[in-house]
Amino acid sequence: MTIQTDASTARVTLLHQMGREGPGHLWLYAGHVAKIEGQPVAGDVVDVVTPAGRFYGRGFYNPESKIRVRFLTFDDIPIDEPFWLERMRQAVRLRQRIVTNSTAYRLIHGEGDRLPGLIVDRYDQALVMQTLAFGMDRRKAMLADLLAEVTGLKTIYLRNDPKSRTLEGLPLERGFAKGSGATTVEITEGQAIFRVDMESGQKTGWFCDQRENRLAAARYANGAEVLEAFCHTGAFGIHAALAGAVSVEGLDVSEDSLVIAREHARRNRVESRCHYRAGDAFDELRALIKTGKRYDMVMLDPPAFARSQQAVPKALTGYKDINLLGIRLTKPEGFLVTSSCSHHISDMQFWDAIRLAARDAKREVRLIEQRGQSGDHPILASMPETRYLKCLILQIF
Amino acid sequence: MTIQTDASTARVTLLHQMGREGPGHLWLYAGHVAKIEGQPVAGDVVDVVTPAGRFYGRGFYNPESKIRVRFLTFDDIPIDEPFWLERMRQAVRLRQRIVTNSTAYRLIHGEGDRLPGLIVDRYDQALVMQTLAFGMDRRKAMLADLLAEVTGLKTIYLRNDPKSRTLEGLPLERGFAKGSGATTVEITEGQAIFRVDMESGQKTGWFCDQRENRLAAARYANGAEVLEAFCHTGAFGIHAALAGAVSVEGLDVSEDSLVIAREHARRNRVESRCHYRAGDAFDELRALIKTGKRYDMVMLDPPAFARSQQAVPKALTGYKDINLLGIRLTKPEGFLVTSSCSHHISDMQFWDAIRLAARDAKREVRLIEQRGQSGDHPILASMPETRYLKCLILQIF
Repeated sequence: MTIQTDASTARVTLLHQMGREGPGHLWLYAGHVAKIEGQPVAGDVVDVVTPAGRFYGRGFYNPESKIRVRFLTFDDIPIDEPFWLERMRQAVRLRQRIVTNSTAYRLIHGEGDRLPGLIVDRYDQALVMQTLAFGMDRRKAMLADLLAEVTGLKTIYLRNDPKSRTLEGLPLERGFAKGSGATTVEITEGQAIFRVDMESGQKTGWFCDQRENRLAAARYANGAEVLEAFCHTGAFGIHAALAGAVSVEGLDVSEDSLVIAREHARRNRVESRCHYRAGDAFDELRALIKTGKRYDMVMLDPPAFARSQQAVPKALTGYKDINLLGIRLTKPEGFLVTSSCSHHISDMQFWDAIRLAARDAKREVRLIEQRGQSGDHPILASMPETRYLKCLILQIF
Repeated sequence: MTIQTDASTARVTLLHQMGREGPGHLWLYAGHVAKIEGQPVAGDVVDVVTPAGRFYGRGFYNPESKIRVRFLTFDDIPIDEPFWLERMRQAVRLRQRIVTNSTAYRLIHGEGDRLPGLIVDRYDQALVMQTLAFGMDRRKAMLADLLAEVTGLKTIYLRNDPKSRTLEGLPLERGFAKGSGATTVEITEGQAIFRVDMESGQKTGWFCDQRENRLAAARYANGAEVLEAFCHTGAFGIHAALAGAVSVEGLDVSEDSLVIAREHARRNRVESRCHYRAGDAFDELRALIKTGKRYDMVMLDPPAFARSQQAVPKALTGYKDINLLGIRLTKPEGFLVTSSCSHHISDMQFWDAIRLAARDAKREVRLIEQRGQSGDHPILASMPETRYLKCLILQIF
């Protein structure tokens, strides 16, 4: 297989000395482009230069997207086969160091691995790939070949159905990029076994970003009666059950997710201790408070409440409210494991929402562990957008 | 042994509806007291009431301290033997859950365990106690008895020499409160063995707050050439060596600390790979940059740069500067493990200092793990002062 060098035949000139987003940010927005020369088309590699004509960076061009250029590098180096292989191998080497407890992990985290728009998750012997930028999508066959070479794996499933692709002018699609066969895979995570549905599961089939948080939370579960709200397919609670929780009560709005949660409980032989029911978490938690039932451990892993900057104030109220309910449902000396995956909500805003909830509940709240996304989802210092997951382990008195 | 109930014979009236610091804060400053009735003396238990005369909380009075009252409870409950035993047992139960990898840990973290001014560290079969508030100090014999009862341990060393005691009108002193014998203890932490000097070591002899961070950092050390600045008695680097680092170069300004670091290296049989030298970290790092030497892993664990709010701007410059040096000394794809123990510097301020350093160094920096103080140092949601340690594991390109 030969990969040709992507020669940059076109040139994009910056409006200002550097992108509004600051040096090192991998996105160049349309409004910050002064001029375009050489008639590039979507997915071409272009050079970006300063107003004075000096080399600034090199990346994928897309006239359809507000993100006009996604930078691949700020060095004047060719975008060729060695470039792609080295970036992929750097990503693999990091995971070899830090993922020792699971056969499911994020191998390439897009911008966080300096491969903007490319997501690759590993599920045992299969990879799931997403090409969310036009430039990555145009090269997906080549990228799949290189991934197979770097990992030695033969199965790559393409899960190209996130709506964000439409912003890049890309169609929604899914199917095997390499190999064929089953679209479900069994993975291990700590002591647990889960079934990942690469075709129909949320995102690419599994939330690897909460892996370390699930394992950390389970350390508090021995002997506990656990309430797991927004339980999805049950991973937090099943880890708790395997760690000795006496009962897990799982709630989720999706009956389809609960079918899988029940399967997961059976597969891990904890079905006698794990019970699931469908319902809106806010409603169910309010109803539970009225019954007087309290738990040794409450877990809250809601979907993102803030999907835009405008949604932040309302989302903060939502986080405060759900955590107020969670705190009230926790026995004195019990634990609340609470998450937020809204990247528009900062660590400090989330913590402040918890503090307000503690005040309103008139309960003393202690932070035992402040956690974030697992290390296979690296955060780029130059790109605040790459930081999103917060998970706090709290003790409530 | 009988502990009498501390009857509150005196009454302190709040100036405002609640302390300036907000509900749940354990400190009542002198300026927020309207009136004092019943002539309490230092260390007495007093009731604090709202301007309308309603019960607000109960705690230790000290006319010598700016912190006029340290709250023990906001419930109208007696401060008696069951009170002390239950608070101690709650503290013990948390540690039994979360400390599984060390014979050294903080058993009672003062305000964080709702026992303001009481610090107790466990080092194998010995306890080190600090009574930093007048009320605790007056009851130290009783507290030592109860600690012995709760833990079953017979040795308690009193390390009452922190300067903060003078703010409470207390003398500086040390010695055995219970038992006698050696003042050094061997402890284990993960795979490592260290010698803790209860009499002369910094603080109570060991920094348990960095325990989990040392173990986490070691996961990145296999095969690495490590530079450990501000190495103190060598714990971060020795863990790295035990995890497979090929070399550890330790720097500290204190030759006395390095003597112990060398002992620790020998005790852990890694002395052939660990080398220590005395020097100012800023000077030494600048000199190393000139030599061209670069490391796979750099560790920075400086003393607090900001000891007051006024010192914050200068401290932020200091953190940026030291991390700029650390980043420049890290090889591409290497790791920087960087800490700040200034509670006046927030997580976000520290992160911003790192981001500025990354810009100035013109290096791409990725955050792999965002960490804080170990869970045996709980943070009280109502008391920002209890949050202080930040530790980031970064990968540098």
